[in-house]
Amino acid sequence: MPEVAAAKPAKVTVGAEDLRALVAGIFAARGVSAADSEAVADALVWANLRGVDSHGVSRVPRYLELFDKGESVPDAAVTVERPRAAIAIVDAHAAPGPVAMNRAADEAMAGARECGIGWASVRGTVHTGAIGYYASRIADAGMAAVGVVAGVPNMAYAGAKGAAVATSPLAVAVPAGKHELVLLDMATAVMALGRIAQLKAAGKELPPGVALTAEGEPTTDPALAKVPTPVGGAKGAGMSLVFEMLASGLAANPIVPSFHSGSKEGRRHRQNGFLLAIDVAAFLPLDEFTATIDETVDAIKSLPPAAGTTEILIPGERGRHTARERAAAGVPLGQKVWRELTGIAAKLDVPVPATAG
Amino acid sequence: MPEVAAAKPAKVTVGAEDLRALVAGIFAARGVSAADSEAVADALVWANLRGVDSHGVSRVPRYLELFDKGESVPDAAVTVERPRAAIAIVDAHAAPGPVAMNRAADEAMAGARECGIGWASVRGTVHTGAIGYYASRIADAGMAAVGVVAGVPNMAYAGAKGAAVATSPLAVAVPAGKHELVLLDMATAVMALGRIAQLKAAGKELPPGVALTAEGEPTTDPALAKVPTPVGGAKGAGMSLVFEMLASGLAANPIVPSFHSGSKEGRRHRQNGFLLAIDVAAFLPLDEFTATIDETVDAIKSLPPAAGTTEILIPGERGRHTARERAAAGVPLGQKVWRELTGIAAKLDVPVPATAG
Repeated sequence: MPEVAAAKPAKVTVGAEDLRALVAGIFAARGVSAADSEAVADALVWANLRGVDSHGVSRVPRYLELFDKGESVPDAAVTVERPRAAIAIVDAHAAPGPVAMNRAADEAMAGARECGIGWASVRGTVHTGAIGYYASRIADAGMAAVGVVAGVPNMAYAGAKGAAVATSPLAVAVPAGKHELVLLDMATAVMALGRIAQLKAAGKELPPGVALTAEGEPTTDPALAKVPTPVGGAKGAGMSLVFEMLASGLAANPIVPSFHSGSKEGRRHRQNGFLLAIDVAAFLPLDEFTATIDETVDAIKSLPPAAGTTEILIPGERGRHTARERAAAGVPLGQKVWRELTGIAAKLDVPVPATAG
Repeated sequence: MPEVAAAKPAKVTVGAEDLRALVAGIFAARGVSAADSEAVADALVWANLRGVDSHGVSRVPRYLELFDKGESVPDAAVTVERPRAAIAIVDAHAAPGPVAMNRAADEAMAGARECGIGWASVRGTVHTGAIGYYASRIADAGMAAVGVVAGVPNMAYAGAKGAAVATSPLAVAVPAGKHELVLLDMATAVMALGRIAQLKAAGKELPPGVALTAEGEPTTDPALAKVPTPVGGAKGAGMSLVFEMLASGLAANPIVPSFHSGSKEGRRHRQNGFLLAIDVAAFLPLDEFTATIDETVDAIKSLPPAAGTTEILIPGERGRHTARERAAAGVPLGQKVWRELTGIAAKLDVPVPATAG
């Protein structure tokens, strides 16, 4: 879920192009190829543009830390197997998430062009960022997309104490006609981790139902809140568990059992995922499909609003509004994030763009 | 979500085999082929066995009513197009849901055997019953499965008054090794419609968050509750909307826009759906995959339980426990459901089995 940055004076504002160039420059200086550096920068800045700042450029220091520890490899050669016509297995060999996931999107679309649908499993990457980015890329090519990422457990599971499963997100993107694409991009947790962390840092009471104590009991006390709760209890927990089974199981790289084995290796940051591309034009003419999607969007947006609602939103619409504003006005970044980025850039001799605010 | 029948004296108990024979006999007497009658009976009794009574044999009168109105066709010839190797479009021509969905499961598996994954869209069926049934059939064949059904709007959408989208369920089934298959089968609503109807009929207060008034405001008053709420607010609503776009849009049979157009036709009962089959053995040896799923299940079930929890459950486990009990002890049915079924059977000269209780 997008997090809208609060309008505090502590923000600096950077143009999206400048921010992309800065991030790409940092990755290139750390040994990532020019094309891959631009791909990572585009995926991260996309998240910032849409207001999902927790999945944006604030993650840059973490990628570099993973490079330092050898847990991610800047120049990893991603390999692809295609055991049957519609499926590919993309082995990231610890490449950064956007590098592996972009390749998976290309492979899923290639399968879909040939067979009607295409699936790409991703094995062993790190930080994929906002998975909606890859689903949107597929929808921009006139296909529908479903994507899932599985990672190291950080969320509760119905009936269990402590972190049991990951907040594994689901993205579904559907191309439209006169409207822009429909994009559902949701974690399986009630509230995004980043938002809980913000409230905890501010010492603010949490809304009911978003977190559990170390003992597995519901709490609104930021000091006692240890793990976020799954959306819909058993539903969100179940979705996360089967997503792990599909994403990690089909990639032959299970995360949940090794995490709970207690081994140090089991807690190492890593992610698996999959993307499914559906070539709409194999089912019906694309313009007939997109006309249907437009009509569906119009039908929902024209419904009588509930009390207190001024506009009924379609999945992805809020993020797109934010992206339009930020593309024009620049991307607001917290001072801490900006200090980290510029500090890194200075060490690596990467030029720092001008800011406002 | 399964509904466990309350232990009231008003129930009769029927053996599962007897109940299957009764239901198959009724459908056959109404002009459904012997094989299709058995398929419908098996799907409905499966739901009763698992405790999902709202999707079981209580639906028989409704199928017959749809036959009477011409909205479902007992001897419809289901047709299949396969525009590309991995995808099929199954046109139900108003055949009963289990007939169309079983065919879709077969087609999805055929695509998966050839291409690694297979997708079947279902156009224009009625009452598919519990979608977990079809996903389980695919998992029983050693494949993973994802299934969705879309229908006529009966659920709220974040920010809108009244019924806006359907409670469109999602099922994911994953084959295991020593364990039984993992089966997530969930509506996109917080609480199943059948459960809300039970509480309303009993005049009992609803739990908070499960229903809205006609004005779109939250209520716990059974008299004011008009529409169930989506799980996780915008998340469940968004899932339902994109499921409609994928299920109905790819089947070229949109439901949401025609429903909201206000036409009588738009409110006619009909469903679309899709099933995705994933041939695990195309990715890695099936026994390696199922060993991973077993380890994942064991890891979750071995977690320290939260306060008040005695056993941590895996998706599908509660239904399987109920199914084991009911397979042995018989299926409990409410007197009203039993009277309806035996009344129909008497009119159609179908033999009625013995009951207990």
